[in-house]
Amino acid sequence: ALSFYVNHASYSSFLCFCPTVVILTSTCILILLRTRLIFIVLLSFSVRSHLKRVILSLLREMDLAALAQGVRNVLSSSTRSSAEEEVESNSVRSPRGPPARVGLVFDTSEANFLGGFIPVLLEKVRHPYCRPEFLYFTDDDIAISADKSIRPVICPKNADRMPLLVGYAETINGGKTLQNEDQATARLLQIVQQGYDAEVAKELDRKRHTKPLSNGRRISDDEPLGSPTLSLGSDSPSLIAPRLEAAFFAIFDGHAGTGASIMASRCLHEHIKSRLSEVLESLIEMDRQENFMSSKFRSNSVYSLGKGQSRREKSTINADSLVIGAIESAYVDMDAQIAEEKQVFKIPGGCAVISATILLGKIYVANAGDCRAVLVTSEKVEALSRDLTPAADSERKRLQEIAYRNPEYIGSCFSRLEYARHLTKKDLRKKVLYRDWFMEGWSVKTVRDSDLRPPLINDRFKKKRLLNTIGVSRGFGDHHLLTVDDKLSIKPFLSAVPEVRVFDIRSLSTLTDKDVLILGSDGVWDVISNEDASLIVKSSLSSSDPSDPSRYCAAAQELATAARGNTTESYKWMMTCGGLASTDDITVFVIPLKYCIAPPQGEDEEDDDEMINLD
Amino acid sequence: ALSFYVNHASYSSFLCFCPTVVILTSTCILILLRTRLIFIVLLSFSVRSHLKRVILSLLREMDLAALAQGVRNVLSSSTRSSAEEEVESNSVRSPRGPPARVGLVFDTSEANFLGGFIPVLLEKVRHPYCRPEFLYFTDDDIAISADKSIRPVICPKNADRMPLLVGYAETINGGKTLQNEDQATARLLQIVQQGYDAEVAKELDRKRHTKPLSNGRRISDDEPLGSPTLSLGSDSPSLIAPRLEAAFFAIFDGHAGTGASIMASRCLHEHIKSRLSEVLESLIEMDRQENFMSSKFRSNSVYSLGKGQSRREKSTINADSLVIGAIESAYVDMDAQIAEEKQVFKIPGGCAVISATILLGKIYVANAGDCRAVLVTSEKVEALSRDLTPAADSERKRLQEIAYRNPEYIGSCFSRLEYARHLTKKDLRKKVLYRDWFMEGWSVKTVRDSDLRPPLINDRFKKKRLLNTIGVSRGFGDHHLLTVDDKLSIKPFLSAVPEVRVFDIRSLSTLTDKDVLILGSDGVWDVISNEDASLIVKSSLSSSDPSDPSRYCAAAQELATAARGNTTESYKWMMTCGGLASTDDITVFVIPLKYCIAPPQGEDEEDDDEMINLD
Repeated sequence: ALSFYVNHASYSSFLCFCPTVVILTSTCILILLRTRLIFIVLLSFSVRSHLKRVILSLLREMDLAALAQGVRNVLSSSTRSSAEEEVESNSVRSPRGPPARVGLVFDTSEANFLGGFIPVLLEKVRHPYCRPEFLYFTDDDIAISADKSIRPVICPKNADRMPLLVGYAETINGGKTLQNEDQATARLLQIVQQGYDAEVAKELDRKRHTKPLSNGRRISDDEPLGSPTLSLGSDSPSLIAPRLEAAFFAIFDGHAGTGASIMASRCLHEHIKSRLSEVLESLIEMDRQENFMSSKFRSNSVYSLGKGQSRREKSTINADSLVIGAIESAYVDMDAQIAEEKQVFKIPGGCAVISATILLGKIYVANAGDCRAVLVTSEKVEALSRDLTPAADSERKRLQEIAYRNPEYIGSCFSRLEYARHLTKKDLRKKVLYRDWFMEGWSVKTVRDSDLRPPLINDRFKKKRLLNTIGVSRGFGDHHLLTVDDKLSIKPFLSAVPEVRVFDIRSLSTLTDKDVLILGSDGVWDVISNEDASLIVKSSLSSSDPSDPSRYCAAAQELATAARGNTTESYKWMMTCGGLASTDDITVFVIPLKYCIAPPQGEDEEDDDEMINLD
Repeated sequence: ALSFYVNHASYSSFLCFCPTVVILTSTCILILLRTRLIFIVLLSFSVRSHLKRVILSLLREMDLAALAQGVRNVLSSSTRSSAEEEVESNSVRSPRGPPARVGLVFDTSEANFLGGFIPVLLEKVRHPYCRPEFLYFTDDDIAISADKSIRPVICPKNADRMPLLVGYAETINGGKTLQNEDQATARLLQIVQQGYDAEVAKELDRKRHTKPLSNGRRISDDEPLGSPTLSLGSDSPSLIAPRLEAAFFAIFDGHAGTGASIMASRCLHEHIKSRLSEVLESLIEMDRQENFMSSKFRSNSVYSLGKGQSRREKSTINADSLVIGAIESAYVDMDAQIAEEKQVFKIPGGCAVISATILLGKIYVANAGDCRAVLVTSEKVEALSRDLTPAADSERKRLQEIAYRNPEYIGSCFSRLEYARHLTKKDLRKKVLYRDWFMEGWSVKTVRDSDLRPPLINDRFKKKRLLNTIGVSRGFGDHHLLTVDDKLSIKPFLSAVPEVRVFDIRSLSTLTDKDVLILGSDGVWDVISNEDASLIVKSSLSSSDPSDPSRYCAAAQELATAARGNTTESYKWMMTCGGLASTDDITVFVIPLKYCIAPPQGEDEEDDDEMINLD
């Protein structure tokens, strides 16, 4: 009988399905509000877990993807105003985000795709699906950009408003999921030392940006990005709050749902801002001293230089370490916030994340997952991040060690070891090379029954997968992700901790407008090498007008387009060079290094002002 | 009343003390066998733990060091024959070691010194105290070398018998402990593929070494060390067992007792031999292929070379990884063996360990602790190991993470965090920089009561100490080590896993007889830098006759002597340059690289033969 509902992936079939749930669960409270096209289903929080399991197993037997698609088709035609019909009106909202478009709806399709399952059926959505704010896209624009037969590579409507004139481009996947699960953030952050009167500073901050000074430029335009402003001058003689301007760019590559990636794209920079503001005064003071020291030693003999540097390296507490500590803590804070808000809101899925925080002439790349940052200068092409997936050896060891210390996490469902080859029953009592958690090298053992269990990290997929489920081992979210077969919790293995790399832009001997940092989701890097990406970006920048504020967007667009390729008659996406193109979501930032040192001073004063006004 | 016994650190006082214990515990079984100077005290295994604690706390109040010294003074005058008076005669003995000199005695002095405590009072000793076999020292020699007012730097009596003619020197500490807690191993290993008839191979092995061929040299002398011998030629046409000769050198720096370091010095190479013999056939085959590949690419264009190398790097299973895996597994096996035998034998203390396994033209340095390997060539001076102590940042994170995942290990006695400064009550509610387990950088927090607990890693000692107790965080043993105040178990934090580094001797463009690998215990490196050590060794080798088989021993002796310094009128040990010398146990190997590629072919055939006969 259930299959009837499933095959008709339409709104009416879904509504028919709901009463079925009512009958099946009996202790659930189901409220159907049919106001225009919005319906709200509330499952009682007191529903006992075994009943939940009954519902879940029923749901699993159905084609959830089709079901959810039907629901979404209906929802996408709903207008924003209808979202006001929420049961609880005092929900916490994102301070800047658009109002929630959709009320409450259950959505497990992505989890089903990934193989995992989110055991929470229905909750309030705090951050509904959207595209990055800096695109300035209307709902119509978003709908058009989601066309999977075309996969348009889209750029911000106002490239000249992008912070530091960074380039950005994105395109949706080729059918893997309904929505683009990548998200992005591009912001200028005004950091003020915590403890100073925050309200006063905020007010002043607002004034600074909305009221240009008499010469038509803001104060901070006189100074390179990240120069500390210890005094605000005549404008406010009484207030001496250490303050700093930073730029922040991040890509969030979601999986099993868009909840975590959207929430992180709205909140991560706030955590970083908050953590930086705790140490800002020390940070500025240390940076000043280190610059003094290095310039002092630079003017000395070679011997002194070496000595001075090695002494500085020994001290682990320096300006860099304060920024790194702030970013590391902010990442962990972010994941904790998701865990906390999951008690109240529906935040499905998880996301890999990479961010570039730019201040005091340095770039801090923080990576947790399989996005990648690649530095492209005239001297070299160098990855500034390491892909942190179950395929990375350090991650393999980390994951195995967790399984070793807490064997109950995998029970008798998986084998902790890595084997040199796939094992079948025929291999019993034969020898096989293996690695355990503490091993860089390989050792040999006799195959026993327990070795025939699927390995903790399975390489029989296109990408290595943890617990047969997930291809990334770091990032945010996934708190409720379970394995397909055994319903083991995956979260204990995942980590929100980033690896942070520092790049000092002033260490470059030359700095041209073609020196950039590329941030990309794995949609790019799965099909394009670091070197090829650098060639594409350089070639694009060479052919563009240096005064064109959209030239970095154009470069990003060329890179994303190359990764997406073109659709063929057989509906495959092929690259121009002939290989298979990426059918994943693709997201690219191209960050010009020279504007990281000194923000753009466009010929057009107004443009420049507007750009900075974004924050 | 107890203080009476303590102040008289003599044999009689100790015997008087024993009846006191009988009265105090009442459920203990105490058997006093007073045959000559041997006494055996057996505590019932069923003694309840709280009773044990009563005894322990009583013991702790006394001056145990003085007590134990008294016991030892008596024991040192006992003869070897008296050791036969053991209660259980079927004890397992080291196949090569001298018979046990001492029966059963309790010994907690070293633990008391370190601050920890071993909760097992009395057990059988399997490996009694000794010095390395290759010294060929008599008991008298050992007694003389233990003179702490002189601290003679001793070398092997027959330097020409040392495997690969390596140099070795050691000296005892300046009073820290009664015995030299450093131990060392120097051996040639005959590795035969497991699965072949081991007995036949062993027999043949014996023949090869004891019966020189007609030309007066053994077969293996024709080939460089580590060349595989797939067939043994006319001597044994039927047996085709893959075999390989390897050299093995190791230093074990003991603490809180000599049991673990002595046992490891007797057994670690057997574990390595055993693990290597499991993979020998694959290892030889892979090495052959890799050499073929590399020589093939070497003769090709630069482009091919690069390509070939990068392809090889990608494959994680290669000859190196088999050796590394064998060594890693062997280290873990070694610690497991100590844990197992501790059920039956008394194996007090623990030890840091560094080893160099030399085969197929490569050196595999495996380090677990604060010993160090330094490569000295005409091109460079480079450490081939990283000091793994609580002061190392990676160890700090590892230890903090264990405390994070298992908070019960530290309870409320310690704080997991690292702080930028020492905290007192005055700091409450102030801000402090801290690092948690996941952080490379520093973050800020407000000091709370829980932050005033001693930190997991305390830097208020000369060396950073874990749980206020131990200065190394890797190595063997310490299974029963507890913290002083709270009796927390320290072992869960310790790791027997080594870091293995590979050095390919053939990668050197030139190879002279002054190119060496120095292995040293921290007694050396605490007072001498890598560079200074290289200068001392090079200078010694420059002034010695290249044909002198003891020249590397002389170099080791100079290095150890430099670290020990000279005693002054104020009974301080000072270095010639003026600084404080090391009063720790000092142990040094100087391994000539050229003999690692091709074993020494001395002018004197007999000497050469004897040298190899050692194994």
